[in-house]
Amino acid sequence: MTATVNPDRTQWDVIVLGGAAAGENAAQYASQFSGLSSVLVESDLLGGECSYWACMPSKALLRPVEVVDAACHLPGLSAGLDVDDVLARRDRVVRHLNDTSQVNWAVSAGIDVVRGYGRLAGERTIRVSLPNGSTRTLTARHAVVIDTGSCPAVPDIPGLRSALPWTSRDVTTMREVPRRVAILGGGVVACEAATWLRGLGAAEVTLVHRGEQLLGRYEPFVGALVSEELQERGVQLRPRRTMAEVRRPDAHGTGRGCIHGGEADVTLDDGTVILADEVVVAAGRTPNTDDIGLDTIGLAAGGYLAVDDHQCVRGAADNWLYAIGDVCGRALLTHMGKYQARTAGEVIAVRARNLGDLPSAATGHAGTPQVVFTTPEVGSAGATEQQARDSGIDVEVVEYDLSALAGTYLLRPDYRGRAKLVIDRATDTVVGATFVGAGIAELVHSATTAIVGRIPLSTLWHVVPSYPTVSEVWLRLLETLRLQRHAEHSR
Amino acid sequence: MTATVNPDRTQWDVIVLGGAAAGENAAQYASQFSGLSSVLVESDLLGGECSYWACMPSKALLRPVEVVDAACHLPGLSAGLDVDDVLARRDRVVRHLNDTSQVNWAVSAGIDVVRGYGRLAGERTIRVSLPNGSTRTLTARHAVVIDTGSCPAVPDIPGLRSALPWTSRDVTTMREVPRRVAILGGGVVACEAATWLRGLGAAEVTLVHRGEQLLGRYEPFVGALVSEELQERGVQLRPRRTMAEVRRPDAHGTGRGCIHGGEADVTLDDGTVILADEVVVAAGRTPNTDDIGLDTIGLAAGGYLAVDDHQCVRGAADNWLYAIGDVCGRALLTHMGKYQARTAGEVIAVRARNLGDLPSAATGHAGTPQVVFTTPEVGSAGATEQQARDSGIDVEVVEYDLSALAGTYLLRPDYRGRAKLVIDRATDTVVGATFVGAGIAELVHSATTAIVGRIPLSTLWHVVPSYPTVSEVWLRLLETLRLQRHAEHSR
Repeated sequence: MTATVNPDRTQWDVIVLGGAAAGENAAQYASQFSGLSSVLVESDLLGGECSYWACMPSKALLRPVEVVDAACHLPGLSAGLDVDDVLARRDRVVRHLNDTSQVNWAVSAGIDVVRGYGRLAGERTIRVSLPNGSTRTLTARHAVVIDTGSCPAVPDIPGLRSALPWTSRDVTTMREVPRRVAILGGGVVACEAATWLRGLGAAEVTLVHRGEQLLGRYEPFVGALVSEELQERGVQLRPRRTMAEVRRPDAHGTGRGCIHGGEADVTLDDGTVILADEVVVAAGRTPNTDDIGLDTIGLAAGGYLAVDDHQCVRGAADNWLYAIGDVCGRALLTHMGKYQARTAGEVIAVRARNLGDLPSAATGHAGTPQVVFTTPEVGSAGATEQQARDSGIDVEVVEYDLSALAGTYLLRPDYRGRAKLVIDRATDTVVGATFVGAGIAELVHSATTAIVGRIPLSTLWHVVPSYPTVSEVWLRLLETLRLQRHAEHSR
Repeated sequence: MTATVNPDRTQWDVIVLGGAAAGENAAQYASQFSGLSSVLVESDLLGGECSYWACMPSKALLRPVEVVDAACHLPGLSAGLDVDDVLARRDRVVRHLNDTSQVNWAVSAGIDVVRGYGRLAGERTIRVSLPNGSTRTLTARHAVVIDTGSCPAVPDIPGLRSALPWTSRDVTTMREVPRRVAILGGGVVACEAATWLRGLGAAEVTLVHRGEQLLGRYEPFVGALVSEELQERGVQLRPRRTMAEVRRPDAHGTGRGCIHGGEADVTLDDGTVILADEVVVAAGRTPNTDDIGLDTIGLAAGGYLAVDDHQCVRGAADNWLYAIGDVCGRALLTHMGKYQARTAGEVIAVRARNLGDLPSAATGHAGTPQVVFTTPEVGSAGATEQQARDSGIDVEVVEYDLSALAGTYLLRPDYRGRAKLVIDRATDTVVGATFVGAGIAELVHSATTAIVGRIPLSTLWHVVPSYPTVSEVWLRLLETLRLQRHAEHSR
């Protein structure tokens, strides 16, 4: 698709640099009730990482694995999957990497789209390198919003880059399932990819990760439970290790999601060697800020863009520059990026039209939820115990074994899972919650609601969970907390 | 099991008449922190309807149907079930109708158990007919709690009773799946039973119900969506009909859950005839109050026991008589019965020991959640639009098509579902929520939390749902509401 906008137009109220999910939302919210004009500048697919190479394809690959797993652990059921059909379904989910429907959405929302690579060129100005080689300069009357996202960090390990390893974009769009896979990383992308690779038939999956535990940013029991289940499913874990060298003499690019060459010898830092048909790097992200013209407005390139609670970039005067999504480094999650986008869009509209009070993203960030679609699922909202302590909160915690619930026993007799609440004693409210286990993805929103709503525990006592659901864990956690407090009081 | 208590003991602080889930909780909460002694009087299995003949077995039968359905609607997956294995699993879930573990729990919690049929015999007095034919009289120092539950209502239709129809107890504990089933009723039991009977292989399932729509107590779209999917699965619906006559000459009792005789001819009130191998009556419940000695304390037998917000029975002086669970008619749901039990138990303890303020069940009843495990699932919390209007609230509503979410499309490409919020304009809070669709069971708790926590919509805006989950419907509902309000304002 080419640009869907009058090629002579040079000025809009709002320019959004980067047309991923968050960028689209910022443009929409800026214009929705205020009539501001906006344009999205994007060199890749409109809709961004989430639609084509992250949330959507990974969930499309994980959901079949989850359903088969649910069936195989329930007496009387049997299930199977056809890998080609699952991959074909994934292709439909990512719309065969075609963004026509996103462009149509933008047009219908009154948002212009300019295809090309944009860079800041001074205040309120974006210079776009167009696909035809020419350059176009756009200016913003009110605001520029940066949503250029992040890209996979590939560590400087001898032979790794020349081995042409898969990153998140390849492993989500894979055309075939490698027989032997070595994954570098122990975070969300690594754990989810290990789950679907193994679930879709990879014979040998090895996770090589630096940390003591997988998913180290979560409560400690999260990594323990996910490790246990990954290992039972045949995934090899190599904790406290990294790759020292990768040798893959036959590496050659074969197209996104195809296996890039012959066998790779991966030598770990303890000298052991893993043979793999593909190497996956899932070792963190780097913000896309190194080549977006930040120097033209006196800001440093390459790092995250620090923002205030209105998503305004610190260091840029006069509130014309905003950053949202991964690039501002607050929470590398689609839904938080979209939340920041709603905030930024409204702030821009309010400032441009003097519409009233400025919204702030501070309230919602206290609840920051995340679901990891591993088997078992991991869900969290708010702070971990450690994060709460680090921020000076007088913390009380309570945990509960999810397998003790009627609702989880009904899901499967061998259910394993755990839940934890982090409580601020001063306000007697929940500031963090973590759930691990099958079927907890939708439960997270109740925790986010309790956290952001600052509902006192004395009120949560009256929020009755439906029987027999997994939500009953709320009652059990509150009962356990009460017994803990009673025991503490009686001591 | 026989009574697990000293046969000469005659007095406890608290007597609970009926040892179902709620009764157990009342005894536990009365004694937990206050040291009150308590005894459960039960003539049937300890643990009650929910554990053996309702929630637990029905969910055990429905979960396999749900998983097979999830698999069959996801491209690339296939699944099947073995009915005998599913029934065997159900038997384990209901512990083969043996309540030893419940008795052990009671003993471990310091709660005595007397086996026998108890009746009130004046103030604070229960007379128990023991299995050996003798009688035992128990007195309570502080309180008697009634938790005698409810039983299926069998309408006075010619030939129906003598046809020995299945009630909820039989259809949940069925030993074999009848080939042709005629169900009388259109509520939760009828719809769930139709789902598992058909899902487990019954060839012909017909629902005969008086109402215009199934599940008539919910928002109107609930019955419409459930009807649509039941019909697609081959269930016959006969709305606005009842049974006029049942002829089953060969009816004979063959044991709980077995088919009670030969073919039944069921004539409807429009003259049409349904041939069935079993008839299921799911036409409401009757409180078990007709033979519990209410006359000895001046109360009428046979009806629900009206209670105040402390679960005290109205009309009994001096706050010694409490009622919880189905028998008080507030909400015929296990979790609400248990909530009432917690309230009653604490009120009794507080009154007996002067421990402080009395808790009230009013707060929690505003949130009353329910999940119906049909395919699709139905979940609700708080009031329907009609209920809110009837209670004088200035109502605003918003609906959203669940199939428009990324999170539901990932569950299945043909997802169907709907959500609705009922808002009190005066307080700008949610007072009711309804969700229909696959995977919404755990989502209900977020609504209950918002309703009971009385969180203003301005705060709910900052409760970010995780992407891509079904919870994202919250964002969509709030966005839709905003557009509605804007349109209203602009008119």
